[in-house]
Amino acid sequence: MSHLTLYSAPGTCALAVRIALLEAQAPHDVVTLDLPNAQQRSPEYLAINPKGRVPALVTEQGILTETSALLLYVAQRFPAARLAPLDDPFALARMQELHSYLASTVHVAHAHGRRAARWADEPSSHKDMRRKMPQNMVECFNVIEQHYLQGPWALGEAYSVADAYLFTVASWLESDGVDIALFPKVTAHTQRMLERPAVQRALA
Amino acid sequence: MSHLTLYSAPGTCALAVRIALLEAQAPHDVVTLDLPNAQQRSPEYLAINPKGRVPALVTEQGILTETSALLLYVAQRFPAARLAPLDDPFALARMQELHSYLASTVHVAHAHGRRAARWADEPSSHKDMRRKMPQNMVECFNVIEQHYLQGPWALGEAYSVADAYLFTVASWLESDGVDIALFPKVTAHTQRMLERPAVQRALA
Repeated sequence: MSHLTLYSAPGTCALAVRIALLEAQAPHDVVTLDLPNAQQRSPEYLAINPKGRVPALVTEQGILTETSALLLYVAQRFPAARLAPLDDPFALARMQELHSYLASTVHVAHAHGRRAARWADEPSSHKDMRRKMPQNMVECFNVIEQHYLQGPWALGEAYSVADAYLFTVASWLESDGVDIALFPKVTAHTQRMLERPAVQRALA
Repeated sequence: MSHLTLYSAPGTCALAVRIALLEAQAPHDVVTLDLPNAQQRSPEYLAINPKGRVPALVTEQGILTETSALLLYVAQRFPAARLAPLDDPFALARMQELHSYLASTVHVAHAHGRRAARWADEPSSHKDMRRKMPQNMVECFNVIEQHYLQGPWALGEAYSVADAYLFTVASWLESDGVDIALFPKVTAHTQRMLERPAVQRALA
């Protein structure tokens, strides 16, 4: 089987894909980009991902981007690792629902803290967005705590790639100025994740 | 087979799910919410979707939300309609990649025009975000035109639920103040979609 290559950077949701690859025991390499020096905007990297973001996964069939797509791909390509409820349309849709919420609402809320310039030009607007961001993250994690995290794992009894994604996004709370202790189920989930060898290796 | 119930509202991405259900010939009802009168924030609707958004799909197994999850569910539940490359992990990941880009980047860019109050409090910030929105939509559709829309359909030769989603988001360009003619492939795709009976029925 060919190697996969993951383009990653510290503090990004590429961590979720790295955890999934390790859980799947997938042969892969990791290339770490230097975001502070804008390596994601270099011509070399834009040839890999024209959107200039991580993660990107180079496969023998082509390049894939977007975290939720990569997580589904890893789960489907390495079915023996049982990382997603692939044969149950309702359960798989539930997984995609959480992935979509994490990507399009929670990650977006977080991004208004550091990347406000994507959506407005004035420094006063950026300051306003940064100020509101922690409140939005609290609202998002209230939804996760009350409606999404079934326990012990995100989707219930079975561990899945959704756990890697949830763990990754929850790891941003501290630097967002939000106390994870507000969310006891999320806190317990993070602790449970930190006990997994694949997570320890991904963080090493 | 039980009925499905789609909670929808005009001008939202629920249109994509409605098109998918019609293409699949899925037995379903549609409940249209009155967004201008904040019906999505009523206690009755929050019991269906605590996030207070559309679409939501009531199934006999439970309620699902998030457009990309609903599209995958419809494709998986009605496989005879061949609305997704279900047996090809790479092709399915490509579909999810486009869905994730539409949800977490393009829809988010669009939302800064009308729902800027989600992310900032000051009227001056909202004005700034509204002003920048069309430029972000142009950037997003440049990515779609150059990298995603393979033609004749979004994923190439085979029609899929991704076409319903792309068509829906492209339909917002005019009210966003962006001329769709800037994107010849997207324009042709929209025309192709308008010829489909399911699309005509969804718009009726």
